Amino acid sequence: MAVYTDVAAEDLAAFLADYDIGELLSYKGIAEGVENSNFLVHASRGYFILTLYEKRVAPHDLPFFLGLMEHLAARGITCPQPVKNRHDKVLGSLAGRPAAVVTFLDGMWIRRPSAGHCAALGETLAQLHLTGADFALKRKNALSVDGWRPLLAAANGRADRLQPGLEQTIAAELEHLERHWPRDLPQGVIHADLFPDNVFFLGNRLSGLIDFYFACTDTLAYDVAVCLNAWCFELDHSYNVTKGRALLQAYARARPLSPAERGELPLLARGAALRFLLTRLVDWLDVPAGALVKPKDPLEYFRKLRFHQAARSVRDYGIAE
Amino acid sequence: MAVYTDVAAEDLAAFLADYDIGELLSYKGIAEGVENSNFLVHASRGYFILTLYEKRVAPHDLPFFLGLMEHLAARGITCPQPVKNRHDKVLGSLAGRPAAVVTFLDGMWIRRPSAGHCAALGETLAQLHLTGADFALKRKNALSVDGWRPLLAAANGRADRLQPGLEQTIAAELEHLERHWPRDLPQGVIHADLFPDNVFFLGNRLSGLIDFYFACTDTLAYDVAVCLNAWCFELDHSYNVTKGRALLQAYARARPLSPAERGELPLLARGAALRFLLTRLVDWLDVPAGALVKPKDPLEYFRKLRFHQAARSVRDYGIAE
Repeated sequence: MAVYTDVAAEDLAAFLADYDIGELLSYKGIAEGVENSNFLVHASRGYFILTLYEKRVAPHDLPFFLGLMEHLAARGITCPQPVKNRHDKVLGSLAGRPAAVVTFLDGMWIRRPSAGHCAALGETLAQLHLTGADFALKRKNALSVDGWRPLLAAANGRADRLQPGLEQTIAAELEHLERHWPRDLPQGVIHADLFPDNVFFLGNRLSGLIDFYFACTDTLAYDVAVCLNAWCFELDHSYNVTKGRALLQAYARARPLSPAERGELPLLARGAALRFLLTRLVDWLDVPAGALVKPKDPLEYFRKLRFHQAARSVRDYGIAE
Repeated sequence: MAVYTDVAAEDLAAFLADYDIGELLSYKGIAEGVENSNFLVHASRGYFILTLYEKRVAPHDLPFFLGLMEHLAARGITCPQPVKNRHDKVLGSLAGRPAAVVTFLDGMWIRRPSAGHCAALGETLAQLHLTGADFALKRKNALSVDGWRPLLAAANGRADRLQPGLEQTIAAELEHLERHWPRDLPQGVIHADLFPDNVFFLGNRLSGLIDFYFACTDTLAYDVAVCLNAWCFELDHSYNVTKGRALLQAYARARPLSPAERGELPLLARGAALRFLLTRLVDWLDVPAGALVKPKDPLEYFRKLRFHQAARSVRDYGIAE
């Protein structure tokens, strides 16, 4: 939401003439997604989201992201559905950037998710994993264990500015994870960033998933671990075992977790916590003084990491081993 | 668009329960208006704009702004229409701020207005002035001639950082305007900020006016002068007499300009140019180094001021004296 590419009405109307969505009636730059410029477009055939891909998204990844949304939407996972232009393409070019039009999803993200919301999320996450199984394209997770050491290097010895000893804690954790990271758990399509602001609800009903721009091919249970971190901690950073149980049980009803996946869950949760600790740390250190955008607190994930380090088994997350 | 107040879905749903617009289905923070936080709201009875008034808008001015929009919308000027809540009020409170819901207007603003767009603007501006005549509330224009000296003081001797000699030029111009400013021309409701981004079009048809948060009671012809500055100069800062003539003739067909108004138009145009030169100058000087938001170029209005200083009569703007 920080930066928008300005798009002139005249240019947008010309771009949309290539789509079968009717006449352009209105468009607004919206505060959604931090990596891209997004516009809510009203055309005579409905409401749509137009995304201009800014430089943090690699153009060669776009066929994976857009293809995945098409694949999932066609199979009943409610997510933005790319709209094809008259040349049968989902990717165009506008204002010098790759651009796509996707369907508009109703729904709101929940600031304070309940155990019921966590259960709905768990069920949909399992469906996403099952539905992604026959998606043909692959994309490496650039932000999994192999990508963490370069992030620590980017912090460049400055982590202790946030908290004395942080650098040493991260380095030791990274070494542990690199040594013990499980490589043979079931793999497939994961969302990899399924935070509450990427999950829409209408009342208590989950109405859709958005923002697939970190999606990749990786360990399915790691995606579960990301969600435990993002959904099941309270504002004081304590783990809410009721929410965790709700998420895990709902997930397992749709896609049972193998004993190996259960056994590795605490380690995967440590990895997920470290991944967000590291990316937030780098963002924090790289924000210029006086900037208007306040970066997210890296130490939130340090405290979550501490919880996971102390966990003995999946029992500590609310389900049986 | 720089800063948004975050509003939780739960809080917004509770706020909107007081309005007869149906169930909340979705809302997005939008990049519109620089003074307030705006959200495009989808409810089961339609689309609306929710505005949270941030501290740059004085709460005691809100009844004027909202009352004016109601007055104009009820009399055929297409502008956002405030929606009353169940207590028959147009002003509520959300996230600790005054808040209002208004109707959503289709249309786009034109980056490169043609003479046809300028004519449409002129006609609607005259209708706005005629329709505002019986609006009961008054509001002083804080940014008219009496407000300019304090702005120059706020620049605090730093104007020459932009261009050598700028301070002296502004001071001399200000003295001239203070001495000669016309006080007895027809007064009424003016928009005072009717730049292209506040005027929506669908094709070549003007579909609505927005952003009444500088509206006030002032010299009607000054509003025309603001529009000449905002609509009738090319990117190279040259005055396009065809556009100016189109705007003025269309205006005068709906509301004829008196000989006194025509006679003072060059001076009013100088004043309008100085007003935007000064506010942009102060914004420019006060932006912190490294900020993401790029302030608008004050010197654009310095060049426009030069044109107006050289103008001999309204003939130079494209119509007869």
